[in-house]
Amino acid sequence: MHEQKMQVLQGTVSKLLRRGATNNLKKALGKIHPADIAHLFRYFDLKDQKKLLVLVPDMEQAADVFSELESDSQAKLAEQLEKDFLISLVEMMADDDSAELIRSLPEELAEDILAAIHDDHSDDVEQLLGYDEDTAGGIMSTDVFALGQDLTVKQAIEALQDSEDYEMVFYVYVVDEHNHLVGVLSLRQLLTVPPATSLADVMTSDVLRVRTDMDQEEVAELVAKYNILAIPVVDEHGKLMGLITVDDVIDVMRDEATEDILRMAGTSEEELLYGYKSFHVARLRLPWLLTTLVGGVVTGTLMWYFKATLEQVIMLISFIPVITGMGGNVGGQTSTIIVRGFATGRIDFSMIRQVFFKELRVGLIMGTTCGLVIAAVAMIWHQNIYLGLVVGLAMVMAISVAACMGVLVTAFFKKVGIDPAIASSPFVQTVNDITGILIYFSTATLFLHHLI
Amino acid sequence: MHEQKMQVLQGTVSKLLRRGATNNLKKALGKIHPADIAHLFRYFDLKDQKKLLVLVPDMEQAADVFSELESDSQAKLAEQLEKDFLISLVEMMADDDSAELIRSLPEELAEDILAAIHDDHSDDVEQLLGYDEDTAGGIMSTDVFALGQDLTVKQAIEALQDSEDYEMVFYVYVVDEHNHLVGVLSLRQLLTVPPATSLADVMTSDVLRVRTDMDQEEVAELVAKYNILAIPVVDEHGKLMGLITVDDVIDVMRDEATEDILRMAGTSEEELLYGYKSFHVARLRLPWLLTTLVGGVVTGTLMWYFKATLEQVIMLISFIPVITGMGGNVGGQTSTIIVRGFATGRIDFSMIRQVFFKELRVGLIMGTTCGLVIAAVAMIWHQNIYLGLVVGLAMVMAISVAACMGVLVTAFFKKVGIDPAIASSPFVQTVNDITGILIYFSTATLFLHHLI
Repeated sequence: MHEQKMQVLQGTVSKLLRRGATNNLKKALGKIHPADIAHLFRYFDLKDQKKLLVLVPDMEQAADVFSELESDSQAKLAEQLEKDFLISLVEMMADDDSAELIRSLPEELAEDILAAIHDDHSDDVEQLLGYDEDTAGGIMSTDVFALGQDLTVKQAIEALQDSEDYEMVFYVYVVDEHNHLVGVLSLRQLLTVPPATSLADVMTSDVLRVRTDMDQEEVAELVAKYNILAIPVVDEHGKLMGLITVDDVIDVMRDEATEDILRMAGTSEEELLYGYKSFHVARLRLPWLLTTLVGGVVTGTLMWYFKATLEQVIMLISFIPVITGMGGNVGGQTSTIIVRGFATGRIDFSMIRQVFFKELRVGLIMGTTCGLVIAAVAMIWHQNIYLGLVVGLAMVMAISVAACMGVLVTAFFKKVGIDPAIASSPFVQTVNDITGILIYFSTATLFLHHLI
Repeated sequence: MHEQKMQVLQGTVSKLLRRGATNNLKKALGKIHPADIAHLFRYFDLKDQKKLLVLVPDMEQAADVFSELESDSQAKLAEQLEKDFLISLVEMMADDDSAELIRSLPEELAEDILAAIHDDHSDDVEQLLGYDEDTAGGIMSTDVFALGQDLTVKQAIEALQDSEDYEMVFYVYVVDEHNHLVGVLSLRQLLTVPPATSLADVMTSDVLRVRTDMDQEEVAELVAKYNILAIPVVDEHGKLMGLITVDDVIDVMRDEATEDILRMAGTSEEELLYGYKSFHVARLRLPWLLTTLVGGVVTGTLMWYFKATLEQVIMLISFIPVITGMGGNVGGQTSTIIVRGFATGRIDFSMIRQVFFKELRVGLIMGTTCGLVIAAVAMIWHQNIYLGLVVGLAMVMAISVAACMGVLVTAFFKKVGIDPAIASSPFVQTVNDITGILIYFSTATLFLHHLI
């Protein structure tokens, strides 16, 4: 439904652009939600994006459109815009959005813009640029609506009426004379108490807060866990520095999920989703592939090492793919489950023993089932009971080992501070290939005199 | 930081439980946030969970704790509780949380509870149970704060002061006499207009809304895209039926991400994350494994078919793992990128041609690089130029084909309405194994007289 609406919009805008119907375009754009215009930009090249952005009738709306663009499209477009126009856009943008933009621009352009924008705004932006991108400080906005604790409810309501500059005011934060965060009030609370009450008497003083240096993922966890709409950010002395709202948290959660998913494919860079320069994309993906290429050669060397066994019993080759494949799959399944368990907080280190033995049990059950199936296949196909025994045994071991490795490798990565999501990547599946081959050919060599 | 706090809490509660210090436990639990108590429950067995829940001093807090539990733990615990206590809990729970609980209970218990709870509440719950779980109707709450359009701002503020039953009132929805949604107002707007104004004169009449039957994922997309805190839900006649708040949306997004990630490992059932019955978990994971087992046997059959080639040129075996492995990796990378592109809305069908040719180019570049590397390895290792040629050529083809398949298979699944996330699962990687083997041995057979 929504997709259809977007397609109609795209059709209309393309047609007007082709016809050069500037006035009609202006009128049309004025009626479209900034988020929708930003969405439409995906279908147009940079030149058209520039034309469209300049035609957005209201400068504030244009700034909203620009803020809604994905970070890379935003940076590319920024470099194409007239500098004066870009500066007016940045002036209109929220300070956190400005900081995000400036982070992604070439240094020289970034400095020019910082020098040109209004002092109030550039001070805020420079302060934000001082925080690490992935921390609470890096994603917060400094536009936080805070009032002194000595004010009365009546004064607070008056202040609120003049608070046009703040977006999303749903809570009023209360600070002491040194700007330390001391309390919070909801707008609704303001409406339900006598106007002469002082804020200190009605506020909730136990305010959930985060430090500027907290990791953004942890912030997102807290907001999700406690179902809150915004969380205030304080410095190490408890001074109120900024605010993170739930829409920022949604962006963080989505980005983190994307990162996890891409990392599982061993690719990790979000750029892969929208980069259109093939050489660049290939260069990002190649390191991973070359790592697994080395792994593949190691596996091949092992097979070469066992070639005498293989030459004597050529029917062994028919089960190489299934043994290595199943080991890789089970290991991948297990580590995916563990990775997601860590990410959602379902699993922590205190449970890792329990999880290990559970996965071992599950691995044994699955290994026995698959082992029986493949043993039957082997016996029927090659009419050799011992081949069935070898293949079946190897399958049970390969799957159980893979399940245990899935837990151990993932937990190890987590422990040493490497993102465990890479544990379910091709890299580690290669490790499972190697153990699979070792198990299979060792078992076969052991039973070799029965097989010949 | 937060994790440490939770560990301290867990320690305290365990100690008090072991000592049977009921009064101290009551006092301690009374001070802990319901979401934190629910979190603690993960570390205790059902018996202790039951003890703790009963000890939560305030019934409303107990209902909050119970609502915050993961769906499966909730259902298990519900079956252990005294029926009267369970009924009092459900009475206190929000109608959407009650409906979610009742959906996961055994039929008989569900009916008993529905019959026992207060009529007002059970009517709401039964209405919610009528919607599909994954739709807007299935996740909305019926507690929506709505006022008639003829009311004045002063009357609205008075109504708001009596609105304790509604959680998270940040917008006031305005309806006509037939309960059709006609407008919306923020609390802040109420504060900034003269008290005698009628709501119809100040409300925004262009309200973003969703239909009860819209898919929950689409709802989440809209809320994320437009940065809103809540979205009203209407029936096919535009009547206001309920409200979805951003905290529900966060849950949806997290569940969908988990589902996507698990599906990529070919496992799909969220139960895998916390199920502790090994046989049950094994049964959930086995269908996938058995599918790929069949694939592995097919690949093995192909190798068997080419055994004459292999017996003549045994050195070919050293490159089987690397050729099939690289094809699988590239195909997996590509389909992961496409799946995530679809999920985040970066890719749609209108771009699929463009994406296909880009992936083909990227595949050719990566294939050529890996092909050159592996050809050099083959030549140096086995001192055979033709082997290098065969392995290198096969690598270029296997990788390029895998990249194209990654796009086509994923797009195909999406087109026919199967979740494309399974395209990057082991199942499809097996398909890449098969094409890899076919390409490799066909090339080798073609050059066979040079290799011997």
